[in-house]
Amino acid sequence: MTQSHQAADRAFVDAQTELRILPLRGIPELTPGDDLPGEIARAAEASGVGLQTGDVLVIAQKAVSKVEGCLVDLNTIEPSAFARTWAAAFGKDPRQTEVVLRESARIVKMANGVLISETRHGFVCANAGVDASNVGGHDVLCLLPPDPDASAEGIRQALRERLGVEVAVIISDTFGRPWRESLTNVAIGVAGMAPIRDYVGLTDAHGYELRVTTLADADELAGAAELVMGKIAAVPAAIVRGFVYTPAEGSARQLVRVPERDLFR
Amino acid sequence: MTQSHQAADRAFVDAQTELRILPLRGIPELTPGDDLPGEIARAAEASGVGLQTGDVLVIAQKAVSKVEGCLVDLNTIEPSAFARTWAAAFGKDPRQTEVVLRESARIVKMANGVLISETRHGFVCANAGVDASNVGGHDVLCLLPPDPDASAEGIRQALRERLGVEVAVIISDTFGRPWRESLTNVAIGVAGMAPIRDYVGLTDAHGYELRVTTLADADELAGAAELVMGKIAAVPAAIVRGFVYTPAEGSARQLVRVPERDLFR
Repeated sequence: MTQSHQAADRAFVDAQTELRILPLRGIPELTPGDDLPGEIARAAEASGVGLQTGDVLVIAQKAVSKVEGCLVDLNTIEPSAFARTWAAAFGKDPRQTEVVLRESARIVKMANGVLISETRHGFVCANAGVDASNVGGHDVLCLLPPDPDASAEGIRQALRERLGVEVAVIISDTFGRPWRESLTNVAIGVAGMAPIRDYVGLTDAHGYELRVTTLADADELAGAAELVMGKIAAVPAAIVRGFVYTPAEGSARQLVRVPERDLFR
Repeated sequence: MTQSHQAADRAFVDAQTELRILPLRGIPELTPGDDLPGEIARAAEASGVGLQTGDVLVIAQKAVSKVEGCLVDLNTIEPSAFARTWAAAFGKDPRQTEVVLRESARIVKMANGVLISETRHGFVCANAGVDASNVGGHDVLCLLPPDPDASAEGIRQALRERLGVEVAVIISDTFGRPWRESLTNVAIGVAGMAPIRDYVGLTDAHGYELRVTTLADADELAGAAELVMGKIAAVPAAIVRGFVYTPAEGSARQLVRVPERDLFR
């Protein structure tokens, strides 16, 4: 069986040609109810790159959360005794700690003032993904969207209807990770593509079965897009053009390690 | 202080323009002593993209290990009693387990047949980075280079001398991670660029101090390059063009979390 047969059977492309990572500038400050697909379409048009069938559109979680109204006014929050105790010990705002706890399905680690939790979606991240930066008010917190896969699919469908293009959509967020310093962007919502490239049972050029069996394409795409998005200039979306993905419904939940396979729970 | 002043003071670019990810095809099967910078220069030339000052060159660890002769013939390995016991319990080759143990500074997790260790470099990964695929012989294992930063710097200097270009070099490998399924490429060697983008103390467009403080540029670049490298077609290197990095000596060790900051040791 030739390599190309293997790849064809598995319906993915092992080695790709050139990719372009295109930042989408000019998207205005977003507020609840804003037309995010419309803003993305306008920014893509204005930048001269447009949106094309086959593009992977990567959107920062905060943009999605804002238009979906996933915002909390700290002045409406009454912290629990638990939140107060923890916040007092580490000089945190107890209302913020309360919001983090409410967004957490499970606390994974609570140490040295760092709170790492598993969200309702199954993502493990600092502060349950709750964030105050780039939100626009010092008393406003931004939460993760309740169903980022559905958010991605909604944007995908809206772009299909308006522009007649078939794109994959990734909602990305910035997560830390054990053992390595600093953060990278990962996919928390996926629509229109298989998030994982699966080499299980395939062989290398020498006929040797590959040990590296699955690659997290959606996470690598989210990270690649982050490189042009920045944290200050507020570029909330980017296009990856040229990446041949496997069309599929897709879900970022495929990237969440199930408890039975997680040695570090 | 304006945002641009902030960025200028910190000597990095927050939001980038278009990036291109260019696979370097046509690099032949490598063996110990081969001229890797020469092969890369030839492949870049033949593909029509060349190498330019400012490029980030990402090279798969296996290509570097092969030319440096970081290979072990399993037939020369006498497994210890410990290696035999573990291997027998999980149907592994005890010689391979022995090599993994010799490459490990510390075992992080040993469960369900999975062996995750900390290498001498400080990287935490499965099997201490020891790998048998894409090596070219069923009894040959490939080890991580002893000093991937030095490998990267050597290639960087060779390309400067031969082509007169100033590039950054990243040696990448494919690692798993807790909590998330599937693998991504990360940087295990860096030369010529700051591997981390540091936002500490900077503010967002609303004047709010950023919570996300450091981004692992080198890991995101390694992951972006992986998207065009593949595991079967053997594309061992790629160029990221257009990414404005901060010139620096650089080291992948900056990406290794120090024990005091590691909640998951």
